[in-house]
Amino acid sequence: MRKRPWRGKPRAERRQGPSEIVVLYGWHTVTAALQNPVRRIRKLYATENALRRLAEEGITPPLPPEVVRPDALMARLTADAVHQGLLAEADPLPSPGIEDVPAAGVVLVLDQITDPHNVGAILRTAAAFAVTAVVTTARHSPEATGVLAKAASGALELTPIAIVQNLARALAALKQRGFLVVGLDSSAADDLAAVKLREPVALVLGAEGKGLRQLTGATCDCLARLNVPGAIKSLNVSNAAALALYIATRATT
Amino acid sequence: MRKRPWRGKPRAERRQGPSEIVVLYGWHTVTAALQNPVRRIRKLYATENALRRLAEEGITPPLPPEVVRPDALMARLTADAVHQGLLAEADPLPSPGIEDVPAAGVVLVLDQITDPHNVGAILRTAAAFAVTAVVTTARHSPEATGVLAKAASGALELTPIAIVQNLARALAALKQRGFLVVGLDSSAADDLAAVKLREPVALVLGAEGKGLRQLTGATCDCLARLNVPGAIKSLNVSNAAALALYIATRATT
Repeated sequence: MRKRPWRGKPRAERRQGPSEIVVLYGWHTVTAALQNPVRRIRKLYATENALRRLAEEGITPPLPPEVVRPDALMARLTADAVHQGLLAEADPLPSPGIEDVPAAGVVLVLDQITDPHNVGAILRTAAAFAVTAVVTTARHSPEATGVLAKAASGALELTPIAIVQNLARALAALKQRGFLVVGLDSSAADDLAAVKLREPVALVLGAEGKGLRQLTGATCDCLARLNVPGAIKSLNVSNAAALALYIATRATT
Repeated sequence: MRKRPWRGKPRAERRQGPSEIVVLYGWHTVTAALQNPVRRIRKLYATENALRRLAEEGITPPLPPEVVRPDALMARLTADAVHQGLLAEADPLPSPGIEDVPAAGVVLVLDQITDPHNVGAILRTAAAFAVTAVVTTARHSPEATGVLAKAASGALELTPIAIVQNLARALAALKQRGFLVVGLDSSAADDLAAVKLREPVALVLGAEGKGLRQLTGATCDCLARLNVPGAIKSLNVSNAAALALYIATRATT
């Protein structure tokens, strides 16, 4: 008699790579997800106050919320998290392949930027500048959940994020499709504001301290710095992203 | 017989307002403090590795460091703090009065911005743009220690911070001394890049969500927004500060 086949570990234990469920909290983060038809919400928790505000703003959740007290939400989160009465469990959004990113506008590329607050703020600013897509590495990048999602303030629902295994190969693919690939490097000779930019353009940012990896820098068409007049020459990476996007957006429109 | 006069509580208990000792950690934050002749360091802790790096970079601390193991530093800090082998206890830097701020260049004014990561990143960017001073409110502002100091990455030692009790009165004092006072407000009609700016100029930023307080806004000479093309119109406050400083610095030089 054949043995009963082994069915594998329960779903939660055998997951690899990104989590299968993401946690979203905070007013902008959750309401943007509720209004995104592509986002599959699994569970929604709301305080009485938040429910009232959803009704006032005419937002109808795609599933009935479970009404909870604020301390029940606090218990799910770290002490400094601001949930504003809403928490959702959802599926991650689908990630486009690098070949699916349209060859248009500005693409922002993050080379192993690990801090979720910074990546979240970058995604928010990327959405403000209407970037075509953000490209991140599969390794050494935070998942699109929790702190990152909160800092992104709804931007996860607006900006496609292509997650790639090999960044140099992804940059080569962008170049082949006509992108000008510009790496930001505080030690570069050229000022980004003086570089002749044109669309489609990919702006590549590295982690604070480390900067761009050697192969990443070597794959770029050119390197440029953000020219600042003060004694400190290196900015917080999300502030650097904001300036780079401002400069690139002005230069190409 | 007269009673023995009450001498008050011990120093540590009767302090009001800012702490009397600040904690600085992280490479840039501590080495900038060690090299600031105005900063009085009370204690310095360094790992073997950090000591070696100090010697390599020719930095001579003003007092002998106590050599510690990395886990002794970790025990002083929160789990996500990156100490990079250095921790110092120091006196806060003196805060200039609003009347001591030179009527020149760009002054950045923070209206009750509470998040220490954001305020630290703003100070770092302010130093990168060589602002004349940063003005903050005494209430609802984080102290210049710990997380804020780390995020400022040495900027605390470079940029004077005027701490004021009454922000509207401080703005009026700046106006009287010739400053153009511009409030950033995402619902303002005018785009900051289109406003006619001139030095000295004070740029006023409010907290995320709340924005400028009513009296703060009313005291400004004008209000302006940062014009962005995307669906998200409100940026992380440190990213907004970076863009405002970039625009103001370009417009006035």
